[in-house]
Amino acid sequence: MLTRIDHIGIACFDLDRTVEFYRATYGFEVFHSEVNEEQGVREAMLKINDTGDGGASYLQLLEPTREDSTVAKWLAKNGEGVHHIAFGTADVDADAADIRGKGVRVLYDEPRTGSMGSRITFLHPKDCGGVLTELVTSAGGEH
Amino acid sequence: MLTRIDHIGIACFDLDRTVEFYRATYGFEVFHSEVNEEQGVREAMLKINDTGDGGASYLQLLEPTREDSTVAKWLAKNGEGVHHIAFGTADVDADAADIRGKGVRVLYDEPRTGSMGSRITFLHPKDCGGVLTELVTSAGGEH
Repeated sequence: MLTRIDHIGIACFDLDRTVEFYRATYGFEVFHSEVNEEQGVREAMLKINDTGDGGASYLQLLEPTREDSTVAKWLAKNGEGVHHIAFGTADVDADAADIRGKGVRVLYDEPRTGSMGSRITFLHPKDCGGVLTELVTSAGGEH
Repeated sequence: MLTRIDHIGIACFDLDRTVEFYRATYGFEVFHSEVNEEQGVREAMLKINDTGDGGASYLQLLEPTREDSTVAKWLAKNGEGVHHIAFGTADVDADAADIRGKGVRVLYDEPRTGSMGSRITFLHPKDCGGVLTELVTSAGGEH
């Protein structure tokens, strides 16, 4: 069961400049940063609020690390902006299987590693009203 | 101070069909629906989670009610997808003034009426890394 908005993924050309925009404009601070080689992104997570399921909601700022990454291709086509949204669940495997069974394309056969050791998968935006949609279970799996 | 992700605004051509997608796929139910004549939209709010500041996070599904609305024009250009993101604050007037003072264009001189009697304003996406960004104070003003 999806129990929170886990994050909003925002694609940018310059991560440092974008982090500084969110800090200077709104006071949002970097909670965590990492490079995800598999996804081809360098990212910063800005924690915005706690959520009722024991998790939290973040902004995830994404800068591509290579030209053949999906985020680089998306930026070349769309320019900077909201790249995807993510819902949190205690069981990404069960929700992905359930949603696949309803005819929505799930992009990975098995969940992969996302931010902060989470397990993630994506749903095809053409099956989701144009919204690239991620499902996330936090590291530890409790939410 | 911005204390939560208040909602993600998603533009669609057919609100009823999109509401049904979110219900059937994820189990999200309509918390509130209304027509905002000023904005030129028919909308459904799906509550996803409570937030640590006493508010909540929603998906806001938006269908234009007239061809000259900003959402209709956006859909004609972009197709369906994420239209804007919104942060919640207890004092939209103070935050809008503060952010305007930092050189970010605020689209309204004074906040207008948003979903569920809230008071809202928008920031220019070209000043916000391509992200149309809304600021919201809930009806009652406590968050």
